[in-house]
Amino acid sequence: MKTRLTEALGITCPVIQAPMAFAAGGALASAVSSAGGLGMIGGAYGDAAWIGQQFDIAAGTRVGCGLITWKLAEQPDLLDQVLARDPAALFLSFGNPAPFAPAIMEAGVPLICQVQTLRDARQALDCGADIIVAQGAEAGGHGEARGTFALVPEIADEIARQNNEALLCAAGGISDGRGLAAALMLGADGAVIGTRFWASHEALVHPRILDRALDATGDDTVRTVVVDVVRGFNWPRRYNGRVLRNPFIQKWHGAEDALKLEAGIEAAKWAAAQEAGNLDVATAFAGEGIGLISSAAPAGDILAKLMADVQRCLAEAASVAER
Amino acid sequence: MKTRLTEALGITCPVIQAPMAFAAGGALASAVSSAGGLGMIGGAYGDAAWIGQQFDIAAGTRVGCGLITWKLAEQPDLLDQVLARDPAALFLSFGNPAPFAPAIMEAGVPLICQVQTLRDARQALDCGADIIVAQGAEAGGHGEARGTFALVPEIADEIARQNNEALLCAAGGISDGRGLAAALMLGADGAVIGTRFWASHEALVHPRILDRALDATGDDTVRTVVVDVVRGFNWPRRYNGRVLRNPFIQKWHGAEDALKLEAGIEAAKWAAAQEAGNLDVATAFAGEGIGLISSAAPAGDILAKLMADVQRCLAEAASVAER
Ligand SMILES: Cc1cc2nc3c(=O)[nH]c(=O)nc-3n(C[C@H](O)[C@H](O)[C@H](O)COP(=O)(O)O)c2cc1C
Ligand SMILES: Cc1cc2nc3c(=O)[nH]c(=O)nc-3n(C[C@H](O)[C@H](O)[C@H](O)COP(=O)(O)O)c2cc1C
Repeated sequence: MKTRLTEALGITCPVIQAPMAFAAGGALASAVSSAGGLGMIGGAYGDAAWIGQQFDIAAGTRVGCGLITWKLAEQPDLLDQVLARDPAALFLSFGNPAPFAPAIMEAGVPLICQVQTLRDARQALDCGADIIVAQGAEAGGHGEARGTFALVPEIADEIARQNNEALLCAAGGISDGRGLAAALMLGADGAVIGTRFWASHEALVHPRILDRALDATGDDTVRTVVVDVVRGFNWPRRYNGRVLRNPFIQKWHGAEDALKLEAGIEAAKWAAAQEAGNLDVATAFAGEGIGLISSAAPAGDILAKLMADVQRCLAEAASVAER
Repeated sequence: MKTRLTEALGITCPVIQAPMAFAAGGALASAVSSAGGLGMIGGAYGDAAWIGQQFDIAAGTRVGCGLITWKLAEQPDLLDQVLARDPAALFLSFGNPAPFAPAIMEAGVPLICQVQTLRDARQALDCGADIIVAQGAEAGGHGEARGTFALVPEIADEIARQNNEALLCAAGGISDGRGLAAALMLGADGAVIGTRFWASHEALVHPRILDRALDATGDDTVRTVVVDVVRGFNWPRRYNGRVLRNPFIQKWHGAEDALKLEAGIEAAKWAAAQEAGNLDVATAFAGEGIGLISSAAPAGDILAKLMADVQRCLAEAASVAER
């Protein structure tokens, strides 16, 4: 299957695996790239040593790397270290990419900017982004309030209006071939997929946390700042993270000020639970698309099934049109 | 164009115009039905006299009627009055449809249930709903938190799992042919469209409010309870309404307790502004799809263009699949 995205990136499936903090290491990225998509190391908060290890694990496959922009701004030297690994692309989210865009472009590395609003998209286009990712609120992990459905075509129109050559991906709620087909209909050239790959054999996820998530429906997720408060992460106020509800989230969601007062104790408890896979406390960052996922699988199988399904959906589309 | 929805309802376009409170009168409903969709009178909070007038205005066309379920529960007699008008369908949202489903089915009127979660969908299926509308948070007007993108396929899977004959429509963020095509890819049989028809010549919208909305982007909307507080409407806590931001909303959003204290004065001010089209105070209930709309038009033209566009999108889909 060919779209402008597959041609620009030299891949065979118009799917970018999301650079998921902590979950997307070199094994996942490498598996996705080997299967024809673009795999991404979740560089996230920028642990240089860990990122280096993950590139080593992925050695022999072309993979990209994602970084959280406001966090990169606190340690700008990291960018050169990542660029030195010759990533297939650099994926920036959550903050103004302008300070980093020139170095990325100079290195000849495709710049992918994930955005949550039309305003963000304009900023990313001004920076010369090669690929805009329109991320809707149904996405797992951090994001904002706008939904995928209207955001994607609105940004597609903006790109067209500007006669900009940038490509567009949809992110948020795409867990299967139907979602990818819908994204293409909305004007995207491909999709960024997180939650579906989070539920893969290669993702770095505690097996108990994953098992519980597979039983969840999309109703069971919520956007919250609880996990950032407990970790002491200084996220800009506009962002929060979509997670599965559990007793810990239920207790503190909406009571973040009280949580801050007990942050020391709760932080230790949370970290231990995350390690141990204690389901009452540990957090699964998963999107609403978790409700479309009932089993884990190797990432390559996930992508192969998704591509078979999207082909079928698109072929059926034509027959609907003709009726 | 034929889908299971067009065949079930005897229409030619798989589009149901949303029963929008105050905005969707007989003229709009009639225009949409005449153009091949299913028009709906926005019976909303249940003003029987107004609803009767709108059916009179629509006389000669088959139109349906929508009612807000928790409000209907306060005046259950209204249901018989509406059924006596032989509506093409009855559209219930925001509350448990169970108490009303038997009378609607007995009258032989198709029951459409708009839902915001998988749990709601199961409830509606249990009631024997003929059509489930999966409404995402990007929708204009009242609703809840889940996004359209993952909700639609999740409910499609639930209907299939139950071997239920119910049809499925997507609602929320569908303003053009791309959106309808995407909805079909996600497994819907058609779409419920509000905001796009709100911005039509036949909708009962103050021209100044409409003009301002046409300049807005999807970034300019917000889900809030401000307008319900100021009107003294007793909405169940899970619902809020998507509106365009303006100084009034900015001032009171998040400060609803303070607003309650000044409710008397503010209510009068708001009602006068709504009447006069005072843009600083009056509210436009519009969805994120407003960012895809740049001009108003007759509802019939809107639907015709949407159908031409969806046909083109679906035809192109096949060519993407073949590449
Ligand atoms: C577990 C998890 C961690 C994530 N971490 C990051 C991150 O570090 N940086 C980032 O840009 N996006 C992150 N995201 C968001 C993804 O980039 C993407 O927008 C999202 O996964 C798409 O929606 P989906 O989860 O419904 O597929 C994360 C998502 C998940 C599920
Ligand atoms: C102005 C306006 C008023 C609405 N009033 C109602 C209502 O009274 N009852 C109802 O069930 N839905 C109402 N809705 C929601 C619609 O049924 C529908 O879910 C929504 O319009 C779909 O999303 P869209 O606006 O993006 O097309 C309203 C929507 C708008 C825009």
